[in-house]
Order: sequence, then structure tokens, then C-alpha cells
Amino acid sequence: MKKTVIGITVVGKDREGIVAAFTNFVFENGGNIEKVNQNVVKGLFGMYLEASFTKIVNVKKFDSGIQLLSKKEKMDVSTHHETNSEKNIAILVTKEPRCLETILDAAKKKSLKGCISAIIGTEKTLEPIAKKAKIPFITISESNQEKAEEKILEICKKYEIDLIVLARYMKILSPNFVWRYPNRIINIHPSLLPAFPGALAYAQAFERGTKIVGVTAHYVTENLDQGPIIFQDSFKVDPDNSLEEIKSKGQKLEADTLLKATKMHLENKLEVRWRKVHVKSK
Amino acid sequence: MKKTVIGITVVGKDREGIVAAFTNFVFENGGNIEKVNQNVVKGLFGMYLEASFTKIVNVKKFDSGIQLLSKKEKMDVSTHHETNSEKNIAILVTKEPRCLETILDAAKKKSLKGCISAIIGTEKTLEPIAKKAKIPFITISESNQEKAEEKILEICKKYEIDLIVLARYMKILSPNFVWRYPNRIINIHPSLLPAFPGALAYAQAFERGTKIVGVTAHYVTENLDQGPIIFQDSFKVDPDNSLEEIKSKGQKLEADTLLKATKMHLENKLEVRWRKVHVKSK
Amino acid sequence: MKKTVIGITVVGKDREGIVAAFTNFVFENGGNIEKVNQNVVKGLFGMYLEASFTKIVNVKKFDSGIQLLSKKEKMDVSTHHETNSEKNIAILVTKEPRCLETILDAAKKKSLKGCISAIIGTEKTLEPIAKKAKIPFITISESNQEKAEEKILEICKKYEIDLIVLARYMKILSPNFVWRYPNRIINIHPSLLPAFPGALAYAQAFERGTKIVGVTAHYVTENLDQGPIIFQDSFKVDPDNSLEEIKSKGQKLEADTLLKATKMHLENKLEVRWRKVHVKSK
Amino acid sequence: MKKTVIGITVVGKDREGIVAAFTNFVFENGGNIEKVNQNVVKGLFGMYLEASFTKIVNVKKFDSGIQLLSKKEKMDVSTHHETNSEKNIAILVTKEPRCLETILDAAKKKSLKGCISAIIGTEKTLEPIAKKAKIPFITISESNQEKAEEKILEICKKYEIDLIVLARYMKILSPNFVWRYPNRIINIHPSLLPAFPGALAYAQAFERGTKIVGVTAHYVTENLDQGPIIFQDSFKVDPDNSLEEIKSKGQKLEADTLLKATKMHLENKLEVRWRKVHVKSK
Repeated sequence: MKKTVIGITVVGKDREGIVAAFTNFVFENGGNIEKVNQNVVKGLFGMYLEASFTKIVNVKKFDSGIQLLSKKEKMDVSTHHETNSEKNIAILVTKEPRCLETILDAAKKKSLKGCISAIIGTEKTLEPIAKKAKIPFITISESNQEKAEEKILEICKKYEIDLIVLARYMKILSPNFVWRYPNRIINIHPSLLPAFPGALAYAQAFERGTKIVGVTAHYVTENLDQGPIIFQDSFKVDPDNSLEEIKSKGQKLEADTLLKATKMHLENKLEVRWRKVHVKSK
Repeated sequence: MKKTVIGITVVGKDREGIVAAFTNFVFENGGNIEKVNQNVVKGLFGMYLEASFTKIVNVKKFDSGIQLLSKKEKMDVSTHHETNSEKNIAILVTKEPRCLETILDAAKKKSLKGCISAIIGTEKTLEPIAKKAKIPFITISESNQEKAEEKILEICKKYEIDLIVLARYMKILSPNFVWRYPNRIINIHPSLLPAFPGALAYAQAFERGTKIVGVTAHYVTENLDQGPIIFQDSFKVDPDNSLEEIKSKGQKLEADTLLKATKMHLENKLEVRWRKVHVKSK
Repeated sequence: MKKTVIGITVVGKDREGIVAAFTNFVFENGGNIEKVNQNVVKGLFGMYLEASFTKIVNVKKFDSGIQLLSKKEKMDVSTHHETNSEKNIAILVTKEPRCLETILDAAKKKSLKGCISAIIGTEKTLEPIAKKAKIPFITISESNQEKAEEKILEICKKYEIDLIVLARYMKILSPNFVWRYPNRIINIHPSLLPAFPGALAYAQAFERGTKIVGVTAHYVTENLDQGPIIFQDSFKVDPDNSLEEIKSKGQKLEADTLLKATKMHLENKLEVRWRKVHVKSK
Repeated sequence: MKKTVIGITVVGKDREGIVAAFTNFVFENGGNIEKVNQNVVKGLFGMYLEASFTKIVNVKKFDSGIQLLSKKEKMDVSTHHETNSEKNIAILVTKEPRCLETILDAAKKKSLKGCISAIIGTEKTLEPIAKKAKIPFITISESNQEKAEEKILEICKKYEIDLIVLARYMKILSPNFVWRYPNRIINIHPSLLPAFPGALAYAQAFERGTKIVGVTAHYVTENLDQGPIIFQDSFKVDPDNSLEEIKSKGQKLEADTLLKATKMHLENKLEVRWRKVHVKSK
């Protein structure tokens, strides 16, 4: 019989006893704890538990039980079950269109196993693209990132988002956000990480005179640009290439690589083991 | 009634089911899991569990039970109980005498709540100091660090070491070693970390022209020079100071700061919460 | 006889022959080249030449000659002569008042050997402080930093600024700006550099759990937070200090340290030799 | 008429007047200063001057003149003229054979425009390969790098070496050495710099889970792994590749890339402008 696996994220103010409360709950419900990651940043506690069940588990009952517990413990808890139903996707953008266009194009051609439920922009620049594709576009121009994230979280709840794709979203998500979507936020970074993290990666590579420039699709963790790498791709440059030529080639590669990673994720083909992403064999 | 707390370290080849096996064992023995940290580096799995028990726990039975389990799971397991009995200390050195001398001097004056059971050197330079203090000195000049660590682990088992003090030990301990002594290895680094990690820290500070030079006593984790900081201390320099003058002042400060951290640890006054070291209030 | 020393900065589009043109000019006017630093970033060339003259030099004639040459070579050139006349100071600010207030206070008490000619803000927050001190306050809220710097350069020319003090100015000056004021821009950074460069330095130190927090006054070069260190000062923290307490202590220290560095610079007591700042002995 | 270009390196104890002495010499001999880089590390001064002459220059007289000056100034000076005569090459190695074998193979096939005059090893491991190729092999096992470099410099003088190739030479050359061969030392580093500088680059990349691994041939400067990049090449990996497989592929690529860079250098096809390497167009 196949094991049932339930992922549980717990986020809230750090205090003693939280780990015990939730691990005990899993144990009492017949689960085995397969993985557990915890972290605390600035007094905020985040835990990701993966529980496996060899007996048949009443997921609904488990969920309502854990929600009761989460109220008692004053923590935000959500559970996540692998299913074969179509996943809901939110795409976060700023103003570069290429990645968004490429993903929308794939969706139009039915080559994406998922439904793009919402596009969230830090500004209105890309709204017309969303409109054309008949997908809700929500502008969250709030400059206070904490408040902006609260609004994004609400939208994600409303649309029951399973996967968040950062298509050149030019803000840094806080742990409070990231911990709620473990290995379910995909970003594209315009360099071969770990080289050139941070902003202006092409300009940095250009200044340094690298002969190979590339892009990295990765899951997002609380450590900026350090999450598990899904795919990387690259192209050769020579010192006579202008920065503009490099950017232009790079942006095409970003879009293709982000799309490839998104597709593989939606088809349940990716697995993260100890910070490395593996492509599952059938 | 006071809670009993047992720390459990599990180290061995990574495979599925390990987390479940040991967390289940704790549950079945009536324990609550207060903390759990896991890590995998190069296929090696390391976990530190902290279990609390509100009922009286038969520590001996618990220990023999977990040793049975560890055999079955083919993992190295050790448990650690806070006690008020005197702790056994191993000091690891290379060739700089100052830190070793300062700690031995404190021990002689009975100002150290612990027993220095062994001094382990990568070379023989400091053997005379150990002899004079009538403490066993073991030279492990093995250049293969993996093998060297195996020998050190044997010695630590033999002398039932509770605390390892790195008194200018010029080798980098691997995760396989470090994970077995969570928050029980103290190092002294000759800079105000995170500035100037790695080798030749004074020379780096001198070259950079910093006006304040310092030292850092910290617990050792698998991330070099990034463990929880226990104490830091510093002094002012001016550009006319030679590198030798800086080193000389620094070495005195290293010894004093390492001693201070060691004393506080032995008196159970330090507590690590989320990578920060707190001095317990009574 | 005392040597005359003239500092020459040359900034402009990089092309062949620039170094030769200006070094030849110095030779032909009887000067010796004591120092020469060049750099190119993104096609922009910057050179700082220090020429000494053992014979009496007609500075006015020299200046007008080099301005003719600079027109021919299409480079921006300025010369700088050590004098004992009072220096003109521009203070650049954003919104933190402490450093500005402390410097203005010193000026009021006549303890500053210089004249604060202008205060330039990225926003209007600190304008009232300037008004009260009867010093012109110019707001340059231009978000494009290149354009903002052009405006600042104009102001600096207009007021014949000799020294630029960054009193918690929250923008990064480009090489095009920095190269025009070699060792004549002083910044205060809220950490013991090289630890915690970049933004949010106190928060970084707090998260890391350092036990010593400090500040660094340094000359600004094209490498962010890497210029020659003038002074550093520090204080001890313990893990029970809140981030707010650390910031508050830090801000006082920033102001005092920046003032100290500014005073020493104005009194011609600082000398930069190979990226280290020396305090001149009388 | 074609310009004559002479490169001049000056290395020695830093003191005032050195820059003036040598720039004046160039000027008085009718030269224009096209480039000048200076640096000081730990009291050691290094300068690289590039002088161009539009009139015919008596190189021999210039050289003997500058040697007289260098004696007077107590500096080590050497000059370097572009010629079309065959260059002398020294290869520095430790124990990895692949790069050395590949270069020797190319030399055997006459595809290298230069003469391998000496192979210098930190140990004897690769001596048999040198013997087979009938090239002098000198072992310099001296562990004090300063002394080792003195010996290497002697050998380089004896064999009138024009180009030094580091074929997996596992030591770090000091500024005192590097400054004497500006843009004439080529190294191969087993990563796509700036990612994974320092030791164990493949292991670092493997641990990080990068999907693209590569190598970098670069000129050596006083900043470790930061010199101008000549060529980079890469290959894709997937998480199922073992570290050994990655190393094996990497070592082949190292050898090919180092050979390519060496050939291009020997054919005078490379030009360094502002830390970027350009391939000259005919």
C-alpha cells in the first residue's frame, strides 16, 4: 500500500513547547515524522514537518484536528497533500514581461499542468498582458514589504494557491512568507548561482568579464538566492558583447528555464532531498 | 517538579526513516520533543534531539533502549544529561601556548569547575606544558583529518569527555565530529567574527587597517567560524602598531576570553537559543 | 623649501592616450608624479595624480593650462591644493538626524575648522534642522542616482566644496562622483567594517548575536564600504538587548565618530598611505 | 609607423619618490606613459608601467639605463618587449597530471608557439612525465612559500621565462612574485569564477547542487582567483552524478581550457584592457 504523506507548516511567535505540541499530534494520529525543519528569525518561529502514514488516514479529520491545535497554540498552520488534481498557480511580477509572457503562452498551449489563478504585480506595467490572457491581475504597490506580503498571503488563500512563481518579481520575500510555501515558490535568478547573487547580476558579470553567463531556477528559502537549484542554463559571451546583448540573451534564457522548472514541478517530477533537487525517475 | 532533559545525537549514513525511528522512540518513552536539528553533508546524517520528560524517567533504561535501537538502525547515538557532577574536559592544541597555559593556570587555582582529562596536540610542541601539569598529552599528527578525528573520538570516549576546548587548534573539524558534541565544543577565533573568518585573521585586519581588533569565543558548528558567539572582546589599534604588537595583545585577549567562556560553560551558565548564546539568570 | 603638492582628478570617457596626456603635462611643468591611481568602470575613466614641485609653481597658470588640456581631451579635470584657509563642507543626509545635529552643534561651538556651506537631502525631513542653523538646505529627491549626482556636483562646484560628509546619506555614490573627491568624502557606517557591509547593519549584527557592535568612519572609494578606515569605535551588547537599544547606542556613537573624523580631516591631521589612514604627528 | 611598447615592472620596498623616479625616466627617454598600476602590500611596492615610443627607441640603451636607475633606487626592475621570437615557458605543477600532459602533448605536436623550458614541481610526482618529454624538472618542496618563490624566480631568470603556466599548482603565489609577471602567469581554476573560489571547488559545487560546473583560465594577479578571465567552459551535471564523475569531466575540461588560453597567449592574440581579456582582431 502506498504511504500517505502530509506536509505541515507551522508559523508564529516562537515559544517553548511548539515542537512538542505538533510532533505529539502527528504521533497520536499514527503518523511517522519523516522530516522536520525549524527555524527562528527575529522571534518568528517556522517549522516544516513531513508526516507519513502507513494506515489509511482521514485527511479531513486530521486537518480539522490540527486547526484546533493551531488555535490553541496561536500558530498559523497549513497542511499540504500531494494530489493529482490540477494545481493553482500565482505569478508574481514587477515590470519585465518576458518570463510572464512565456508562461502564459505555455498555458495557452495547454502544455502547463496547472491553472494560473492570479497574477500579482508590484506595479501596473504588466496588467495589459494579464488582461489579454483573462487572468485576474492584482496590483500590490505597498512599499512596506510586511504589509505587502500580508495582502499577497490573503490572495493566495483566496485562490487556494499551490505554487508561487516569481517571474522577475523584484522584492525580497521574508521568512514569514517563504516558510508558508516550503519548496513551493520558484524563482528565476539571472546568474549561475552562487556567482553574482543580489541585484544587477548581468551588470556584475559584465563588469567581471566572465565568459559564460547563465540563469538559475531555484526554490526559494529564507536565505536569499541560496535555495535548492532546480535548473541552470548558460551561454557564452565574449568581451565585445555589450551589456544590452547579454541581457537580451539572458532574458530569453530566464523565461525558458523558469518555464521548464515550473512544468516539472507541476508534473510532480521534482523532489528536494537535503537542499538538492532531484528529478524523479518514473 | 523539574523536567528531565535528555539530549540525543544521532550520526550515520543518511537514509529514510531515521527521523521517524528516533522521534517515535522518544514518544513511546513518554518524552516530548523540544528541539530537533538535522543536517546532511555528503551523505552523512546528523540529528540533535532534545527530549523533555515530565514524569520520572529511568535514564539508564532509556539509554540502553536507545543503544539497542541505534544498533538496529546502524547509527552512532549518544545521549547527554545535564548533571551537577564535574565535567571532563579535553583541550585540543597545535603550537601556540598562551590559551593552554591560561586554562591550566585557572585549573591549578581551582577556579575551573571541571577536570582537564586530556590534552590532544597535532604536534609535540606543547607536550612539556601538559607534563608539567601532569595531564596526559596525546599527539595525533595524522595528516588525514578523517582518521585523526576517529582517534580523537576514541580518546574522548575513553575519558568520557563532556566539553572540548579548542585552544588554537589549527585544524578544521568535520561535521562528523562536530555533530557528536552539539554546543559542547568551544573555539577561540582571533577576530571579531563575522569579520576575518579563516586563517591569518590578525594579518587580514592589519592589512585592512581596522582600528579595532578583537577575538571571539564561540561554539563550533559544522559551518566554520559561524557557530553561536559566546563572548567577544576587543582593543584599539592605530596604524603605527606593527602586526607583531597586534598579535601579542590579541593572544592575551584570546586566552582570557576562551577561559571566560569555558568557565561559564562549566558552571552551566550558558544557554543556546536559536544560534544565540544567553547567559542564564539565576 | 617645502614642496608644493597638487592633486589632480581626471574623469571622463575612457580612451587611449589619456594617461600620457596628463602625465606629460605634469612633467613639462616641472612636476614629479608622486602617486597615480587609475580605474575604469563601465567605460568611465578616473585618474588621481599627485604631483610635487620643488621649484616655485605658478598654481594659477598651472590650473589654466590643465583646463585647456582637459577641454582638448574632453575630460573633466579639477585640481586640489592643500591650503590653510577654511574648508567648505557639504553634508549629505537622508532622514536620520543624529549625525547632522552633532556636526552642526560642533560648528556652532566653533570647534570645527571649516564652514558648512550646504546641506543636501534626499528628502525634506531634516530641512528644519538646517533652517534653524541658517544653512542652505537643498532637496534632491531625484530617484535616478546618475541625475541626482549631477545636481549634487553642481552644488558642490557652486559652493566650492572641499569636503563632503555623508551623515547617514542612504544612497550609493557612483565612481563618477567618488573619483572627483579622492579622500575627501567621509562616510559613517554602522558596523565594524569589514563585518556587516551594506544595509541594515545593526539588524545583521543583532541576528548574528555579536557581543560587540561598532561603527566605522571611512573615506569613500568606488568600492562600497571598503574605503580607508579613519576611526572605529564600539560597545558591548548582550543577547538581552533589543535591536532598538543597540540602534540607539549606535546612533550616538555614529555621530561622535563621524564628528571626530571630520574634525581631524579639517585640521589636516589625516594622511592616507596605501589605503591606510595615518594620524600625522606634528 | 608602429609604436614601440615597453612594459616595465618595478618591485621593492615602498618609499617616497619611486613613482617619480621611474615616470621621469620614461619621460626623459621620450616615452609616453600609457598605463600605470601600482600597489603596496605589507610594505612591498609593485608598479607596472607601459610606455609607448613614437620615435625609434634604442631598447638596449633604455634597458641599461633603467637598470642603472634601479640600482640607485634599490628596486628590482625588469622590462618586457613584445617580440615575435619564440617565448620560453615554465610550467608549475603539484601532482595532478592531466593539464601538464595535455600541454606537453600539444608541444610535441608543434601546435604550441613557444618552448617549454622548465617544469617546476612542489613534489616529485610528475617528474617522470617531464623526463619522458625531456624537459628539465625541478622540485621545490620548500614549504616556506617566500623561500620557494625566490628559488622559482631564480629558475625563471636562468631560463629567461616569458610565460608561467600554473597547471594545477597548489600553492598561492605572493604579490612579490605575481607583480614581476603582469599578465604573464596563466592559471586554471576548477570553477566558473567568481563562484567557488579557493580550494575544493568541485566539492563545493557538488555540495551546493549546481547544475552547471565549469572551469576558468585566467591571468594571475595579487588577488587570488580574481585576475582577468581568459576563457571559461562548462558542462551540465545532474544530482545523480557522483563527485568523482564531476571531477573526471572537469579535469579534462581544465586541461583543454588551459591549453587554449596558453596557445592564444603565445600567439599574441590576447590583450588585457581594464581587467578584461580581449581576443585581438587581426
